Amino acid sequence: MVDSRRMQQILTHLSAREAQYVDELCEYVRFPSVSAQPQHQADLAACAEWLAQRCRRAGLEARVCPTAGHPVVWAQTPRKASSSGGSPSRTRRPHYVIYGHYDVQPAEPLDLWKTPPFEPRLEKGALFARGASDNKGQHLAHLQAVEAYLQTGTELPCDLTFIIEGEEEVGSRNLGLFLKEHRAELRCDAVVVSDTGMPSPKHPALTYALRGIAALEVKVTGPSRDLHSGLYGGSVDNPALALCQMLAQLRDAQGRVAIPGFYDDVTSLTAFERRQLARLPHRDNEYRRFLGVPALFGEKGFTSTERRCARPTLEINGLTSGYQGEGSKTIIPAWASAKLTMRLVPHQQPARIARLVARHLKGICPPTVRLQVTAGHGGEPYLVSPEGTQAQAALRALKKAFGRDPVLLREGGSIPIVTDFKKILGADTLLLGLALPDDNAHSPNEKFDLGNYRQGRVLSAWLWQELTQAC
Amino acid sequence: MVDSRRMQQILTHLSAREAQYVDELCEYVRFPSVSAQPQHQADLAACAEWLAQRCRRAGLEARVCPTAGHPVVWAQTPRKASSSGGSPSRTRRPHYVIYGHYDVQPAEPLDLWKTPPFEPRLEKGALFARGASDNKGQHLAHLQAVEAYLQTGTELPCDLTFIIEGEEEVGSRNLGLFLKEHRAELRCDAVVVSDTGMPSPKHPALTYALRGIAALEVKVTGPSRDLHSGLYGGSVDNPALALCQMLAQLRDAQGRVAIPGFYDDVTSLTAFERRQLARLPHRDNEYRRFLGVPALFGEKGFTSTERRCARPTLEINGLTSGYQGEGSKTIIPAWASAKLTMRLVPHQQPARIARLVARHLKGICPPTVRLQVTAGHGGEPYLVSPEGTQAQAALRALKKAFGRDPVLLREGGSIPIVTDFKKILGADTLLLGLALPDDNAHSPNEKFDLGNYRQGRVLSAWLWQELTQAC
Repeated sequence: MVDSRRMQQILTHLSAREAQYVDELCEYVRFPSVSAQPQHQADLAACAEWLAQRCRRAGLEARVCPTAGHPVVWAQTPRKASSSGGSPSRTRRPHYVIYGHYDVQPAEPLDLWKTPPFEPRLEKGALFARGASDNKGQHLAHLQAVEAYLQTGTELPCDLTFIIEGEEEVGSRNLGLFLKEHRAELRCDAVVVSDTGMPSPKHPALTYALRGIAALEVKVTGPSRDLHSGLYGGSVDNPALALCQMLAQLRDAQGRVAIPGFYDDVTSLTAFERRQLARLPHRDNEYRRFLGVPALFGEKGFTSTERRCARPTLEINGLTSGYQGEGSKTIIPAWASAKLTMRLVPHQQPARIARLVARHLKGICPPTVRLQVTAGHGGEPYLVSPEGTQAQAALRALKKAFGRDPVLLREGGSIPIVTDFKKILGADTLLLGLALPDDNAHSPNEKFDLGNYRQGRVLSAWLWQELTQAC
Repeated sequence: MVDSRRMQQILTHLSAREAQYVDELCEYVRFPSVSAQPQHQADLAACAEWLAQRCRRAGLEARVCPTAGHPVVWAQTPRKASSSGGSPSRTRRPHYVIYGHYDVQPAEPLDLWKTPPFEPRLEKGALFARGASDNKGQHLAHLQAVEAYLQTGTELPCDLTFIIEGEEEVGSRNLGLFLKEHRAELRCDAVVVSDTGMPSPKHPALTYALRGIAALEVKVTGPSRDLHSGLYGGSVDNPALALCQMLAQLRDAQGRVAIPGFYDDVTSLTAFERRQLARLPHRDNEYRRFLGVPALFGEKGFTSTERRCARPTLEINGLTSGYQGEGSKTIIPAWASAKLTMRLVPHQQPARIARLVARHLKGICPPTVRLQVTAGHGGEPYLVSPEGTQAQAALRALKKAFGRDPVLLREGGSIPIVTDFKKILGADTLLLGLALPDDNAHSPNEKFDLGNYRQGRVLSAWLWQELTQAC
């Protein structure tokens, strides 16, 4: 570990440049790098180019790597001679990959933004813009910390490679192949990702588990065409009602998913985990008001936090049938369909869950309609032990940066790429998110807290020390 | 009654003009007079204007009468001096009102039409277009028959008034007031309506009962906005699932509507009625294939014919919630809604049924979502004795036109205005429908059989003779 004088020098370097770092983020978020919208293709390319340049200014070797979709920005610290050469040995320098994404969510609906989404605005200690916290600000903080090492002449205790992709918001569809193609160069001791959240500025967090996902589309077909409900009603089943009756059976009155085998692979929360989750700042009443629901609801025997982080769910994401316009149309609709997603917890397998749900639906489908179930995308859940040496190192770095005991989080959402890091690179991922609950990720008026931006740099500066010490 | 030479002259006049009558109907159905869709307002006005002109060409006095909604076309035969003057007397000429509607159902889904809905196509002895049989072709046949009387110089044995409205497909919301305002001029001996069906070209039919209708829209609201299903899923109810669970309870496994009080006012079918209905040409297996369903379904203890003609129902006409586009969007939708209609049988009251359904839904709505139930249009069921003198006259005219013994029908559909004719004008309605079961009313590829179009004109020509003889 570097001596404290060296570390102080890095921290001084960082705090002396805060205004410049804010300017940089402003510049970065001005690129409307919306990966879902084809009209922004050139913006994504320009954004990737800007980022590669910024990495070079930091002292990294950087290149923009084409993929079948938007390019990946690859940037790495200058390699020491000892790190080259191949097979792991006692002298091998540790290597960490820092993952992030320069693409952003669509900004629509534009009329709900206080100021235009790609014109950054500073207000109340935050920077407002699409992409500010998801994810430009978060990986830029890491880059600035690494730059501080290089510019102060402090030796980094490890090799670092930034992999910043441009398709996270559209499902990272080309990253898996990219990782496979560069498996050797990207072999690493861990992947560091700052793309999750922390409960409040006072609660720095390590996210040690993510939910997975399995998507299905269910279509129930009755008559070969919409029928006049007066002329035929009563003598044939109504596909919309049949669908409702099938879907209604998928969740019981206790809020449990009522599909045989659904919970087979779900492990119980340990007392330690439940204590950790109970430490999180949360009040049901405030939470209820924040969501705007008349009452909270969920699986009996679990807290709201446990329900949304650590328990599997089944949701209807959309329903479609018959006439949906103004007024009424007196028909028996020919078909009705529903989009479903199941959020999965560690050890549940997306493909198996999709099969179970499809089989169950087939079992309860009445003979009066036809059923079609189409499997959609899947993502595996993720779990890394918070008691491992790397997790413990990350927790120490968090405490040093934020001056507070970090909390342990399970996140309800999914980051499918994390599973790829494990499968393809064989590496665990440390999720050290800097986004706050009110950062409006994916919503109008997205922001990034400048305090978290600052602490994020400090966290990154400490992280490489703590991680390599733990090696 | 006119002598048979005169009648022959009328029939010859009609059969000499068949090609022209088909052209006329083509012209008429080209107007996309969709009353439910505001963008078609000008089309409805133009359609009404066209019809009034057509009536004038037939020799009628016609005008387009504005209402709060779409206008009513009023056309009447030239009045004899003896018919003016007021109070009923032995010398008063009989007066019949012929009712129809020039508005049509929405044509969606457009992609299921073989050719565009408002570009008529002739194929296999039928004219395909939205509105061809429902209802433009049917009242046009009457107009052509009346025109034949006037153009052959044959004295009509009665006064006739055509009332062709533009809001039948949206609940005839302004016709009640219109009838009240013109109660004196519209006082009549009966109303004749051809807007129902006949089981086959070999089964001309008098419909002596209609189902009524009550429409509702149900909206279930949860969170104040669509929520990320990963971040929040499991801790709040899903409005789409809550809606499904509520709707699922509205019908039991025996096919009965499971709403307390729903069947209170329903009278049992008599043995005579069941025998009449059993006379109708019907085979469950053919019917099943015709509708394209894997199996028929309905209330236990009734035949398919009874279920669709003489038993009340509850149908979901449409479902809407969340994301309905391609792929998936991982949200908990903020709301979900359903359009419902109940078909009612004689003695059930639409307003009471709507209240019962709304009350029941409120009773079963969970506290985790908000419920909003909006009552839509309603129409009372109708029943007229098939043994009355007017019904018997109509049966004779049917037999003369079609050369076969007519059947007695109860119709599953609703013509709410028929109740208004009884309440406001004090007149019974003779339902002499010309639509065939495969005419695709309210569905893509609606058509009108040109044979029925032809026999409809002959029926109308005979009808005025038979009715006035029965006076």
